[in-house]
Amino acid sequence: MEEDFRALEFVGGALRLIDQRQLPEKLVYINCRSAGDVANAIRTMIVRGAPAIGGAAGYGVYLALLEADDSTERFNALCQTIRSARPTAVNLMWAVDRVRKRAEETGYDRNEVLKEADSIVLEDKAMNRRIGEIGADVLRKGDTILTHCNAGALATCGWGTALGVIKEAHYRGMGIKVYADETRPLLQGARLTAWELVRAGIPVTLIPDSAAATLIRDGKIDAIILGADRITANGDVANKLGTFMLSVIAKTYGVPFYSVAPTSTIDFGMKSGKDIPIEERDGDEVRRPGGILMAPESVDVYNPAFDVTPHENITGIITERGIIYPPFDKNIERIRCGETI
Amino acid sequence: MEEDFRALEFVGGALRLIDQRQLPEKLVYINCRSAGDVANAIRTMIVRGAPAIGGAAGYGVYLALLEADDSTERFNALCQTIRSARPTAVNLMWAVDRVRKRAEETGYDRNEVLKEADSIVLEDKAMNRRIGEIGADVLRKGDTILTHCNAGALATCGWGTALGVIKEAHYRGMGIKVYADETRPLLQGARLTAWELVRAGIPVTLIPDSAAATLIRDGKIDAIILGADRITANGDVANKLGTFMLSVIAKTYGVPFYSVAPTSTIDFGMKSGKDIPIEERDGDEVRRPGGILMAPESVDVYNPAFDVTPHENITGIITERGIIYPPFDKNIERIRCGETI
Repeated sequence: MEEDFRALEFVGGALRLIDQRQLPEKLVYINCRSAGDVANAIRTMIVRGAPAIGGAAGYGVYLALLEADDSTERFNALCQTIRSARPTAVNLMWAVDRVRKRAEETGYDRNEVLKEADSIVLEDKAMNRRIGEIGADVLRKGDTILTHCNAGALATCGWGTALGVIKEAHYRGMGIKVYADETRPLLQGARLTAWELVRAGIPVTLIPDSAAATLIRDGKIDAIILGADRITANGDVANKLGTFMLSVIAKTYGVPFYSVAPTSTIDFGMKSGKDIPIEERDGDEVRRPGGILMAPESVDVYNPAFDVTPHENITGIITERGIIYPPFDKNIERIRCGETI
Repeated sequence: MEEDFRALEFVGGALRLIDQRQLPEKLVYINCRSAGDVANAIRTMIVRGAPAIGGAAGYGVYLALLEADDSTERFNALCQTIRSARPTAVNLMWAVDRVRKRAEETGYDRNEVLKEADSIVLEDKAMNRRIGEIGADVLRKGDTILTHCNAGALATCGWGTALGVIKEAHYRGMGIKVYADETRPLLQGARLTAWELVRAGIPVTLIPDSAAATLIRDGKIDAIILGADRITANGDVANKLGTFMLSVIAKTYGVPFYSVAPTSTIDFGMKSGKDIPIEERDGDEVRRPGGILMAPESVDVYNPAFDVTPHENITGIITERGIIYPPFDKNIERIRCGETI
């Protein structure tokens, strides 16, 4: 099985992206033909989700190389523009650095750079398949899963991380059901996750974010499965705003809570979640749901895009190399050293 | 000090209401000239908030009496229509029963019935002033308060319960600040609370509901102060969806959590929150924020209007007769028996 759409693809000399801001109403593709186009697509959330941002950024570096016209200075400046398009997802920095390094190693060979960008996408898809298989093993027949935001095909280079686990379980015939948090303010749960799951024929019920707590308390949720934007060396996880709230409720009521991400999401150099820069976004995302003004125009808004879930609240981190369980610091160090876990 | 608008007033033979669905964009008044109009205004949330629903319902009974044209059967049927407009707020049943009883006692004297409906409004306003004074005493200078939904002048017959406490503290010059949860799905926090506080010149910052957890954990919130739609004999509280989630986070991080409501909100005959009927509302409230479709049209939605906060998570219930502290069952019984607390 595979999804019946391509959210991110390099075709005809351009990075073709689904404009995720227009889903679910319209399925519109946008072509990025320059590094600036890619940086803009990341900044304005035409493409979002840490692994998808990484995939897009890789092609952005390739486009930067074409544009730079043999000027290393220009190439590096364009890479920096992409690298700083958003601050929280470590995959963005990781992908830019990886492809840029390949450029340097190969004397700025365009073909090799394009191949490196392709590799990020191909590896991500393969990893997500593997993550799905590993993750589905922790679920039981008939489980009801709660997910938050979108960690699906749209958030990655294909298949998805958290939704990859859910899809794998579904295609194994486990008869699972899903509750999807709508995920204010940008409603990625309503717009993207619900869209992906409905399209895949997986039973899904959409809820306001605040409804999750009662469902968890009342035993209606067997596991919480969601993505990660950055994981630190101690196992703390930055993810979409609302994740931390769910983790507290899950811990209080003893519901398993899994973060799902490729190991490229781990920022081994960062000790704890306290150090993760949290992006604050425009207040109008809150004041204007669906573009319609629903608050006094002058009211102050605090709109952090992410929050940090401390490792104590996490049951396990599902990766392509296995599930990381506590003690997270020791087991993440083993991942860093290339050991099996 | 008083607010510079009247959300609920009986003038010119009609109940005049602010159409709260149109705030903050437009300040529109609607006249209810029949019991059916009043029931409809309650059902469609032109008027909302437990005490305001009670105030409106009282006038609805008066309008029912005029319409019934001396038919007791018709009068009772119209009262029942109002009484069943929404299921969760106990003030609705309480107000209908109170004014209907007055009708029966006075041989269906129209003047006496109108006076009884007026009394509900006048008493509510006076109670809210008293609640505000009692509640402000638990706050300290410079406190930052988190509130949810709208328990303000718009939710009551004037001044407000939770916002009454906040207004009183503000006018005492305590220099308090407020974070207001936007309160999905109907955004009463964004549309109504932010509007009331901005209008009153009280510093307010609007947040997505999911942002509250991090603020609470990080010590940015000194107290959580919100309303109640029904309180049971053991101190459990039904309130707007999202209240329970906040109560778990507050308890986890040791932040005081106060429910604020007149004692008419207490349903002495109901043992615990498990018995409270929770209204499920139309899925389109979630699918279409601001009226704009933001989810697949066919997706299932679970949209409970309220949740139940267990009394273990509540620091105190601020009423016009004092603050009810644990043990809630004993102290609520003392309220029922008319004792001082």
